[in-house]
Amino acid sequence: MAYTEGMLREDALKDKTIIITGGGTGLGKSMATYFLKIGANVVICSRRLEVLEKTAVELEAETGGSVLAVQCDVRKTDQVENVIQKAIEKFGRVDGLVNNSAGNFISPTEKLSYKAVDVVVDIVLRGTYYFTLALGKYWIENNIKGTVLNISTTYAWTGSGWVVPSAMAKAGVLAMTKSLAFEWAKYGIRLNAIAPGPFPTKGAWDRLFPKELAEKFSFKNRIPLHRVGNHQELANLAAYLMSDFSAYMTGEVITLDGGEVLAAGQFNFLKEVSDDQWDAIEEQIKNANRDSKKSE
Amino acid sequence: MAYTEGMLREDALKDKTIIITGGGTGLGKSMATYFLKIGANVVICSRRLEVLEKTAVELEAETGGSVLAVQCDVRKTDQVENVIQKAIEKFGRVDGLVNNSAGNFISPTEKLSYKAVDVVVDIVLRGTYYFTLALGKYWIENNIKGTVLNISTTYAWTGSGWVVPSAMAKAGVLAMTKSLAFEWAKYGIRLNAIAPGPFPTKGAWDRLFPKELAEKFSFKNRIPLHRVGNHQELANLAAYLMSDFSAYMTGEVITLDGGEVLAAGQFNFLKEVSDDQWDAIEEQIKNANRDSKKSE
Amino acid sequence: MAYTEGMLREDALKDKTIIITGGGTGLGKSMATYFLKIGANVVICSRRLEVLEKTAVELEAETGGSVLAVQCDVRKTDQVENVIQKAIEKFGRVDGLVNNSAGNFISPTEKLSYKAVDVVVDIVLRGTYYFTLALGKYWIENNIKGTVLNISTTYAWTGSGWVVPSAMAKAGVLAMTKSLAFEWAKYGIRLNAIAPGPFPTKGAWDRLFPKELAEKFSFKNRIPLHRVGNHQELANLAAYLMSDFSAYMTGEVITLDGGEVLAAGQFNFLKEVSDDQWDAIEEQIKNANRDSKKSE
Amino acid sequence: MAYTEGMLREDALKDKTIIITGGGTGLGKSMATYFLKIGANVVICSRRLEVLEKTAVELEAETGGSVLAVQCDVRKTDQVENVIQKAIEKFGRVDGLVNNSAGNFISPTEKLSYKAVDVVVDIVLRGTYYFTLALGKYWIENNIKGTVLNISTTYAWTGSGWVVPSAMAKAGVLAMTKSLAFEWAKYGIRLNAIAPGPFPTKGAWDRLFPKELAEKFSFKNRIPLHRVGNHQELANLAAYLMSDFSAYMTGEVITLDGGEVLAAGQFNFLKEVSDDQWDAIEEQIKNANRDSKKSE
Repeated sequence: MAYTEGMLREDALKDKTIIITGGGTGLGKSMATYFLKIGANVVICSRRLEVLEKTAVELEAETGGSVLAVQCDVRKTDQVENVIQKAIEKFGRVDGLVNNSAGNFISPTEKLSYKAVDVVVDIVLRGTYYFTLALGKYWIENNIKGTVLNISTTYAWTGSGWVVPSAMAKAGVLAMTKSLAFEWAKYGIRLNAIAPGPFPTKGAWDRLFPKELAEKFSFKNRIPLHRVGNHQELANLAAYLMSDFSAYMTGEVITLDGGEVLAAGQFNFLKEVSDDQWDAIEEQIKNANRDSKKSE
Repeated sequence: MAYTEGMLREDALKDKTIIITGGGTGLGKSMATYFLKIGANVVICSRRLEVLEKTAVELEAETGGSVLAVQCDVRKTDQVENVIQKAIEKFGRVDGLVNNSAGNFISPTEKLSYKAVDVVVDIVLRGTYYFTLALGKYWIENNIKGTVLNISTTYAWTGSGWVVPSAMAKAGVLAMTKSLAFEWAKYGIRLNAIAPGPFPTKGAWDRLFPKELAEKFSFKNRIPLHRVGNHQELANLAAYLMSDFSAYMTGEVITLDGGEVLAAGQFNFLKEVSDDQWDAIEEQIKNANRDSKKSE
Repeated sequence: MAYTEGMLREDALKDKTIIITGGGTGLGKSMATYFLKIGANVVICSRRLEVLEKTAVELEAETGGSVLAVQCDVRKTDQVENVIQKAIEKFGRVDGLVNNSAGNFISPTEKLSYKAVDVVVDIVLRGTYYFTLALGKYWIENNIKGTVLNISTTYAWTGSGWVVPSAMAKAGVLAMTKSLAFEWAKYGIRLNAIAPGPFPTKGAWDRLFPKELAEKFSFKNRIPLHRVGNHQELANLAAYLMSDFSAYMTGEVITLDGGEVLAAGQFNFLKEVSDDQWDAIEEQIKNANRDSKKSE
Repeated sequence: MAYTEGMLREDALKDKTIIITGGGTGLGKSMATYFLKIGANVVICSRRLEVLEKTAVELEAETGGSVLAVQCDVRKTDQVENVIQKAIEKFGRVDGLVNNSAGNFISPTEKLSYKAVDVVVDIVLRGTYYFTLALGKYWIENNIKGTVLNISTTYAWTGSGWVVPSAMAKAGVLAMTKSLAFEWAKYGIRLNAIAPGPFPTKGAWDRLFPKELAEKFSFKNRIPLHRVGNHQELANLAAYLMSDFSAYMTGEVITLDGGEVLAAGQFNFLKEVSDDQWDAIEEQIKNANRDSKKSE
C-alpha cells in the first residue's frame, strides 16, 4: 500500500458534517478533500471568501460531495456563530470541528511588537476556543456527541524559539484539548489533536519560510525519516480521529512528524558520526577503560 | 460506522509478515485476527505451545490467513532467535513485530521480593529488547524497513503505585521506542507504541484483578467515556501503526484509554459536583468576591 | 530543620531588584518577604494600589528591605512599562521578574461566556507575555542577564476541567518559558517556572473555592503527602530559582505539590485498599493463577 | 553570589545519614562532599573498595564529617543489604539514599550484544530498585520518613539513540520514582530525581566520550547557556532535595542542564541565523506576504 492513498473504508465519515476552519487552502483543503471522499459534508471558512468559494467548487467537482463556504474571522464570535448557523441550515446539524486556522511569525521574539504577538495569539488560541465553546454549547444543548480535532504542533509542549506567539497559543489549545476531553466526556464529546511535522504547502510554509532559509535547513537532512510528509498521510490520520473508529480516544495529541521531535535526545547529535569513526571510537573507549582500570 | 468493525482497506497489510509475542490470547489474539483479515501473515509465540496451536487453527479457519505458532520464552535469546528463524523459513521474511508479551503483579511494592520484581522486568523489558535487537539486526543486514509496535501503558510515563515492576519495565520499553526510532530512522525502521486503557480479556485482566476489586473500582465510573474499550478498537489502531499508512510516524506512543490518563488534572475531582451544587457554588463565589472587594 | 524556615544563605539575593506581579497578597507577598530577607529589593504591582502600599509598609518594617509599590493592570502595556521605568528610577536596574498575577473561574466551561474566558486569558497569558517582552527588550538592550520565574500549575500540561481558561493561559505561559529559555539563553537570560499544588491563602484560594466544596474535597485526603504546602516552602524554591545558585537551570518547571499530580497513575486508585483487603486479594490472585494454569 | 559556592544554611542536613551509591568518584563524590559540609553523615559504596577508602579519608579531612566506605556491587542483593546493615551499625539509622551508580555504552545499538545491554540495565535499573526496595522496607518497618534521590537523565523521557541500554534503564528508574512517590507517600517517604546535563568528571564522562568526539561536539556550542555545569551546582540542588526544605516535593524530576533538553523545539535550529540574515529574512517575508495577497 502506498501512503499516498486513502486508508479508511469508503463510508468511514458517512453522513457526518464537519467544519474545517482555514479549510480553503493547504492542509485544511487536503483534509476536506479526503473527508468528502469518505462520505462527509464539509464546511470551510476563513477570511477570504473568494478563495473558499473557488475551493468549494473544485472539491465538489473532484469528490461529488457537498461543501459549504462561509466567510469568517475566527476572532469574531458573531462570525463564528454564523458559520455554525449556516452549517445547520444547510446540513441539518454539525458533528465535527477541525480547528485548523493559524497564523505565525518567524522572528526573534525581541523584534516583535506587543501587537504582533496579540495577532497570532488571537487567531490561534482565541479563534479556537471561540469556535469550540460555541459548538460545545450547541452539542450539549442538542445532545450531539460531537468531535473536535485541533491541529497542534510539537512545540506546543516542547516550546520553540523564534515562533513564540504561536508556541504560546498552540500550547493553550493543547491544554484546552485535554481539559475539555475530561470535562465534556460525560456528554460524549471528544477532543483530540495532531502535531504535524513538515507538510509543506504553498499557502503556509512558503510564506513562513523564505527560500534561502528553507534550503539552508533542508528537511531532508533534519527529519529522521529523511522526507517531508504527504498531505494524504495527515488526512488519513485526521479522518480516523474524526470518525467513530477512534471513539475510545479523547484528550490525545498524536505526533506525525517523521521523528522530528525526537531530536531532543541528549546523544542524538551522534547521528553525524560515520561508520569509520565509530570503529575508531570503539577502540579509544576500550583503551580508556583499560588505562582507567590500571590507574585505580 | 460502528467502532466494533474493521476500519482499514481490506488490503492494508497485504503480504506483510508480523510476529506478535503473546499472540495466543487476549489483545494479542485480537490484533492477530484483524491483521490476518487485512492480508498479513502472522507469527504468534509464547511459552504455552498448546494454547498457541489452538489459536492458530482457530484463526486460520476464521480468517483464511496463514498463522505460525512457535514456542518461546522471550527471556531466552536463543528462543527469540528461533522464532525469527522459523518465521523466515515459512514466510520468506519478517516485516513487523508487536511486543505484546507481559507480566504483572498488582501489590504493595514493599510486599514484593527482589525476585518477583525481576520476573516482571525480565519478561516485559528484557523480552522486548531481546526481540527488538534480534529483529533490528536482521532488518539492517537485509535492508528491510521493518516496523515495531510496543504495547505500552500510560503509567510508563505517569508512573503508578501497586504495579511498580511493570511501570519500570514499560517505561524502559517506551524509552527504547523513542531512542531507536531516532537512531534507526536512517534504515527506514519505525517504532511506535500504544498505551491502552482497560480492554478487559480473560487472559490478563481477570487474573490481575480479583472480582471484588474489579467491582469496587468499576471502570464504568472511573473512565471519562464511561466504558471499557472494544478489542477491535485497539486492533484498528494497531493495524494502522503496522501498515504503510503510518509511514511518517515514528517514536510515537498513542493513548487509547477513554480519557483515563486525564485524571491527573488538578480540578478534575470536580466531576462529582452536581448541577445543583454548581448553581450554589456560583452564588457563593459571587458573594465571596463582593465581600472581598468591600474589605480591601 | 523545619521546612517553615528560610533555607538559603542570608545574602543569596543581595543587590538584586525583583518585580513581583500581584505581589501585594498571597503567595506573591510571601515570596516578596523572603526575597527581602535575603537581600533583594522588591517591586510589587497590581491593580489595587491601596493594598500594595499597605503591604510595602508592612514588609519594609518586617524585613528592613526596600519595597516599591506601583499600580498596574498587566493587560495594559503602558502600565507594564511604567512599572519597569519606576523600578529603574528607584533601584537603578531590574534583575528579575516573577509573573505571579492570576485570575481564575472555577466553573463548567459551557457556562462561561466568551468574555469570561477572555478575561482570564488576558490577565494570565497576555499580562505575562507583555511583562516578559518588555523586560526582555530592556535586558537585551542593557546587556543584563535577567531571570524570569513564572508561577505555573500542573494543569498547564495535564489540562484540567472546570478551570479551562486558566489551563489554556498557564499552558501558554509554560510554552513561553521553554521557548524563550532557549532563544534568549545566548543573552544569559533565564526563564523557569514553579507548578505549586495547594498553598492556601485568603487572597486567592478562598475566593476560588467555596467553603462547602473545600470541605467536600479536603486536601488532606487528596494530596499524597496529606497536607497543604507552607508558603515558606514555595518561597524557598522561588528564591533558589531567582538566585545565581540556579544559574545552570533554564526552561524548567518544578512541581511542588505534595505529589498531587501523580494521581494520573492508572492503578493509583488502589490507595483505598486496606491492608486486610490486600491479604485477601493476594489469596485470590494465587488461586486465579492456579486455576488458570490448570485449565490451559 | 557565585554558583560555585554552597547555597544552603550550614545545618541543612544536620544529623542525617545518607547513602550515595557510586559515591567514590565524580558527581557522587561532589555530592558527598557538600552533604558532609552541611552536617550529614555519608556512606559511599561501589565495587572498588580501594577508591572508596581513599575518598573517605580525603573527605573526612576536608570536611570534618564522618564517612563510611563499603564495597558493593549493586546487582547483588546481599551486598546491598550489607551496606545498609553496616550503615545502621555505624550511624544508628539511614535517612537518605542517592542512587548514583551508573554504567553506559555509547554505541550504535545494533553493534551491542544482548549481554552488553544486560550489563547496563542491571547496574542502572536493577541496582537502583534493589537498593530502593531494601531501604524502603527498612524505613516502613522502622517508621522512618526516608528520602530517595535518583540521578536520572533527560533521555529517560525523551529517549536517545546511541545510549539505548542506559535510556531504558534510566526511564525505568524515573517510573519507579513517580510510582513509589505516590504509593509510599503515606509513609512519609519521598522520591525525587535530577536530570543533569553535562557535568564533566574524569570518572565518567571522559571514559564515555573519546577526546576526538568531545571536541567535535563541544558542549560550549551545543548547550544554550554555553557552558558545562559546575559540580557545586548539582550538589546544591541535590542537597536541597535530600533536606527537609523540599518536604513538600515528591515524584519530581528536576532538569539542570543549561537548557540542553530544549533543543527539541521545532524551530530552534534557527539559532544559527545571524542578525544580518534576520534582516534579510524579514524583508523576504514581507514581500512574500504582499505577493501572496496580490495573487489571491
